[in-house]
Amino acid sequence: MSEITVGVLGARGRMGSEAVGAVEEADGMTVVAQVDADDALDALVDGGAQVVVDFTNPSVVMDNLRFCIEHGIHAVVGTSGFDDDRLAEVSTMLADREDVGVLIVPNFSIGAVLMMRFAAIAAPYFESVEIVELHHPDKVDAPSGTATRTAEMIAAARRSAGSAPIPDATTSDPLGARGGVVDGVHVHAVRSRGLVAHQEVLLGDQAETLTIRHDSVHRSSFMPGVVAGVRGVVGRPGLTVGLDAVLGLD
Amino acid sequence: MSEITVGVLGARGRMGSEAVGAVEEADGMTVVAQVDADDALDALVDGGAQVVVDFTNPSVVMDNLRFCIEHGIHAVVGTSGFDDDRLAEVSTMLADREDVGVLIVPNFSIGAVLMMRFAAIAAPYFESVEIVELHHPDKVDAPSGTATRTAEMIAAARRSAGSAPIPDATTSDPLGARGGVVDGVHVHAVRSRGLVAHQEVLLGDQAETLTIRHDSVHRSSFMPGVVAGVRGVVGRPGLTVGLDAVLGLD
Amino acid sequence: MSEITVGVLGARGRMGSEAVGAVEEADGMTVVAQVDADDALDALVDGGAQVVVDFTNPSVVMDNLRFCIEHGIHAVVGTSGFDDDRLAEVSTMLADREDVGVLIVPNFSIGAVLMMRFAAIAAPYFESVEIVELHHPDKVDAPSGTATRTAEMIAAARRSAGSAPIPDATTSDPLGARGGVVDGVHVHAVRSRGLVAHQEVLLGDQAETLTIRHDSVHRSSFMPGVVAGVRGVVGRPGLTVGLDAVLGLD
Amino acid sequence: MSEITVGVLGARGRMGSEAVGAVEEADGMTVVAQVDADDALDALVDGGAQVVVDFTNPSVVMDNLRFCIEHGIHAVVGTSGFDDDRLAEVSTMLADREDVGVLIVPNFSIGAVLMMRFAAIAAPYFESVEIVELHHPDKVDAPSGTATRTAEMIAAARRSAGSAPIPDATTSDPLGARGGVVDGVHVHAVRSRGLVAHQEVLLGDQAETLTIRHDSVHRSSFMPGVVAGVRGVVGRPGLTVGLDAVLGLD
Repeated sequence: MSEITVGVLGARGRMGSEAVGAVEEADGMTVVAQVDADDALDALVDGGAQVVVDFTNPSVVMDNLRFCIEHGIHAVVGTSGFDDDRLAEVSTMLADREDVGVLIVPNFSIGAVLMMRFAAIAAPYFESVEIVELHHPDKVDAPSGTATRTAEMIAAARRSAGSAPIPDATTSDPLGARGGVVDGVHVHAVRSRGLVAHQEVLLGDQAETLTIRHDSVHRSSFMPGVVAGVRGVVGRPGLTVGLDAVLGLD
Repeated sequence: MSEITVGVLGARGRMGSEAVGAVEEADGMTVVAQVDADDALDALVDGGAQVVVDFTNPSVVMDNLRFCIEHGIHAVVGTSGFDDDRLAEVSTMLADREDVGVLIVPNFSIGAVLMMRFAAIAAPYFESVEIVELHHPDKVDAPSGTATRTAEMIAAARRSAGSAPIPDATTSDPLGARGGVVDGVHVHAVRSRGLVAHQEVLLGDQAETLTIRHDSVHRSSFMPGVVAGVRGVVGRPGLTVGLDAVLGLD
Repeated sequence: MSEITVGVLGARGRMGSEAVGAVEEADGMTVVAQVDADDALDALVDGGAQVVVDFTNPSVVMDNLRFCIEHGIHAVVGTSGFDDDRLAEVSTMLADREDVGVLIVPNFSIGAVLMMRFAAIAAPYFESVEIVELHHPDKVDAPSGTATRTAEMIAAARRSAGSAPIPDATTSDPLGARGGVVDGVHVHAVRSRGLVAHQEVLLGDQAETLTIRHDSVHRSSFMPGVVAGVRGVVGRPGLTVGLDAVLGLD
Repeated sequence: MSEITVGVLGARGRMGSEAVGAVEEADGMTVVAQVDADDALDALVDGGAQVVVDFTNPSVVMDNLRFCIEHGIHAVVGTSGFDDDRLAEVSTMLADREDVGVLIVPNFSIGAVLMMRFAAIAAPYFESVEIVELHHPDKVDAPSGTATRTAEMIAAARRSAGSAPIPDATTSDPLGARGGVVDGVHVHAVRSRGLVAHQEVLLGDQAETLTIRHDSVHRSSFMPGVVAGVRGVVGRPGLTVGLDAVLGLD
């Protein structure tokens, strides 16, 4: 069987260069084009790329996608900024090209994807759920996008199941120690030197707790997800959001 | 809607008495008979029990089940000792009574059931998996039944997925610090005062770990599972093993 | 050697009754008087108590102490509400009785005392420190008194050592997910069914973290501290605050 | 005040090159000589090094130390292999040079040093103590040196305090899941991809546990200890083992 030919956009950035290495090391795929800010996209066509991995930035990613789709190249996208409007735009681009697949991935960490999914499955079985996310102290925003998304998934699962509101007898909290609330779920953001990206979901019921924790200590943890995305987008035409489908979790 | 009428066998034991309380407190069910070692099973019939909860012991549980099935009473069984022979025997008893359900439950903790299930789902996505179970120091056997069962489920999932063996470069371990191995999965048993029943499944891949931990600090943590079992066994004729089906996890 | 004779005040309350049992079980001490709300304090003298354990309430504890000191009975006090004024008042009471010891104990858990002490020792060696306290959802206030006290001890240790402020680049936290701040230390309060009383101190520096966690799952965890207090207060005249001295930690 | 001048031996190795960078970045010290396998030690003298940091190997470290001591250069040693014989030999070398200090450091991680120390302090206050060390799966030996040393320190502390043996009712452990025993303390070694170097000491008593955990995710975590060693060895003549004294922990 021939190898999947891959082009990497943003190839000299931190994530992109990591992706180049990961694709090279993976079985059944090879890098045929490395494109960065000043390079022409034609290199993708010249190199014969079947799949593009895009780690660029929100200002150029849509043009990249238009080029790929027009040229029949599948895309795995790690660039952020895909709101509903952008997703709709990608769907429109894809309307004429039934053979091309685009996979938008908010989180390439397989462990994080599983954590979120398990949290949502478990949430209706427990009275209480809270989220603690922990990151390095140079992070400028709180809570993390993953924590927010996890809380939304938990809240949706509980609504579907008709779960009661999470109990909380707190009447005095002058300092705001109880943290933030996303969709009815308390979210706490810890910042400490020595941490990278971590999250813990605590589910509690009568005399028992279930804790699901994900620890990522280097961006290389995202690479198995990139490789799975490259494998998965081939033969999956149309727009897909999230690694779940590619991982066989749907 | 009328309440489910429940008889408890082993009603004066530790688990049984807890079960009596839990059924009484739960919505939609009520205790109509409490039977212990010296009491006649006829009390179940006299009380009009639709469902029996059995927390007795391996020497009497089969007779109890025969009685229940003959009298058209569903059974939720927490008594241990159900090997393949006993399960086959129960199936035979049920052959003539298509209206009766028997639910054999090795672990009533919903959190533990979810932990095992999540561990098995996640296992093929990670290079490494190990199990640490932690219990009070009066426990006489190691590893725990739950740890053994978890390891078996993990190993089965990895076999199905064609996962590689778990990496381990250990060449020198004179004291046996690497613990026990169940079906290719390392299992560690910690014993300490102050603990009750806990288990952690650690899954690891390049630069990331996913940890699933269950903590049970009192036998009352099993009661939501007992209540779910009582609700679930009604309308589920035949033999069912494990809470998974009742919890809607299958 | 003769046994230490102990009277328990508040003997029918939750902590008091637990204390009666713990003293009875401990080597070298015995309960000679159990006094509750409607009983006369004279029972302490009649019973020949050398030491009193007080688990009453703030409205009566000062009268109890006055009685004990006048009658030459040492006191171990678990009742809350001892601010600086009350401590000064106790010192005054003790001025004339150089033979009597009073031990005021804000937290009887030996594990919690050690956690706080270790956190304070370690704090100047790390760039970052944060506290996460976790309790059952029926607790009405946040953060816990132990978390507040821990933060104060950490802050004092860092001030003494001339530590830099804890780094935190957060500029956007619209929901307050970063929690409360006590004396420059972030404190997070988690509430969940299935928890009792837990606290984690996370200390972080370049590529490493040190985590000190205390879990208490039942009030019986306070009893070794009560017993140590009874043993320690004999032969320790004057006012002592906290178990540290009694545990040989000073 | 003039800067401390530092020479690094093994300067092109993984730890040595990290040390060069750390010393350069630290306040009050500067690198004046980088020496590796094929370089002459004279570079230390030529560069005017006051302190040497040695990350070489057991076959050359004794010669390095002899050279340094003869030339009045203090040494901070991270090289392994210092048993009692070697320590005695270093003491003999130092006998004639009362102005020179040698600091042998089995573990440069300040967090690990604190973990071990806290574990030893706490151990006599708890009925139970166990150690779980967790490392990457390429490690060839189990348990880790740090775990073994921690167990020895815990055992010594308990002997001094007259503690009872740690309770363990295990009668059936056919797979060896209870792990290894060092000096009466159970030690468990977990190996998983995604881990670097971690250790957890679990102390338990009636209804409570105290957990002390150290996580190191990169060798850069050792650098604050190297810097503290360089600062501390100046003005500390003679032989010192371990960072404790330098950190002000003795």
